[in-house]
Amino acid sequence: MNAVKKAAGLSHVELVGLHCHIGSQIFDTEPFLLAARIMIGFLSQIRQQTGITLQKLNLGGGYGICYTPENDPPSYEKYMEQVSSAIHETCRLLDFPTPYILLEPGRSIVGPAGITLYTVGSVKEIPGVRTYVSVDGGMTDNPRYALYQSEYQIMNVGLADQEKTMRVTLAGHCCESGDLIGENLPVQHLEKGDIVAVLSTGAYNYSMASHYNRVPNPPVVLVRGDTDRIIVKRERWEDLVRLDV
Amino acid sequence: MNAVKKAAGLSHVELVGLHCHIGSQIFDTEPFLLAARIMIGFLSQIRQQTGITLQKLNLGGGYGICYTPENDPPSYEKYMEQVSSAIHETCRLLDFPTPYILLEPGRSIVGPAGITLYTVGSVKEIPGVRTYVSVDGGMTDNPRYALYQSEYQIMNVGLADQEKTMRVTLAGHCCESGDLIGENLPVQHLEKGDIVAVLSTGAYNYSMASHYNRVPNPPVVLVRGDTDRIIVKRERWEDLVRLDV
Repeated sequence: MNAVKKAAGLSHVELVGLHCHIGSQIFDTEPFLLAARIMIGFLSQIRQQTGITLQKLNLGGGYGICYTPENDPPSYEKYMEQVSSAIHETCRLLDFPTPYILLEPGRSIVGPAGITLYTVGSVKEIPGVRTYVSVDGGMTDNPRYALYQSEYQIMNVGLADQEKTMRVTLAGHCCESGDLIGENLPVQHLEKGDIVAVLSTGAYNYSMASHYNRVPNPPVVLVRGDTDRIIVKRERWEDLVRLDV
Repeated sequence: MNAVKKAAGLSHVELVGLHCHIGSQIFDTEPFLLAARIMIGFLSQIRQQTGITLQKLNLGGGYGICYTPENDPPSYEKYMEQVSSAIHETCRLLDFPTPYILLEPGRSIVGPAGITLYTVGSVKEIPGVRTYVSVDGGMTDNPRYALYQSEYQIMNVGLADQEKTMRVTLAGHCCESGDLIGENLPVQHLEKGDIVAVLSTGAYNYSMASHYNRVPNPPVVLVRGDTDRIIVKRERWEDLVRLDV
């Protein structure tokens, strides 16, 4: 309230609304409904205390996506229906005009749309310990396992319709033991030269990519049905050194 | 031994020596001496079993550097004297000709030589909890705390000769709570606009940098005495989108 009053009193600031963000990878709709009710309650308090009726409310993002089969995100339809009801109901109760609602569904749109493709360089079975599958990428294009032990589903794209019979540690090519995409991942039989797909890598992957070990980033290809086009070009050695004096 | 025999039998491979690498941030010299003795012993075994006298031995890297006052790396002089003695002694014992020795002291050269400079954006004290100091960088230029909880020493460069009276959490500007350079770090009094130095950031920092949140990388400046020159140019917005189609 102090910040609102301060902003409202500044001649060079036009206060149009509020923003909130409650977290990430949230699978229940209830916290979003609660956030909506709280924020509209706050808009109503602002009107009472200052006479200002704010007309925009950004409810942020955080909608969970399906990284593993255990993840069960609600449908957009269900979410929109419930959050709309909560907003309208709270506005009616408080006699507050329904604000213009903004949402930030970034990851939930681009995350599941992205698939990373790697080529298997080698398969190294250490009997009774684990099987390493090394690929031509890793923490440079996807640091999320190294940072947060994030979970992913993988598959051998050539055997996508077959049963997953192996459990593997998918390792990148950087010079450290932490360069992993995942451990103990179920996958179809894999050998040198196979293409491995890592699913749901459209968000926080390309955007978090590095050039560690001077590894250039792969291209990003947009696919729809039978058509495809490159939307981000493959990085070349010359790109990596272009700023070196 | 199997790999050596296989390599030695390949017509398109010239086997000239062996390489080993025992780890990272090692402060005792003893493991390096042990590695040298083991490798020369192996060179001698190779000679016995195959008749091949390999003439190069790369003992790798892993020399610890001073990230915090608790780190106490041995001097190069002490290390070189001890490892040289171990090599010569083992060669004499086994009647093996002293090989050409290669070392990989990368981090121990460039690590302590590097200092990252940030400008303080805000200081936010949460009484009884912690004090956040946010800066114009973070995990994008130094992901080591996010990845490994690596420790660093920091200072307010304008008050470098004064006592460290604050304990702060140094936070970057990315959209996640893990974007930290360190927690509970002793530092001199800090306020908005001050320059904070993070020491020993010459290795595994610029090389691991990302563009997360579309943050461009800072320039790298070489300083010697009173002279300085840019060796890597500052990244611009145009650089970040240059491969976008």
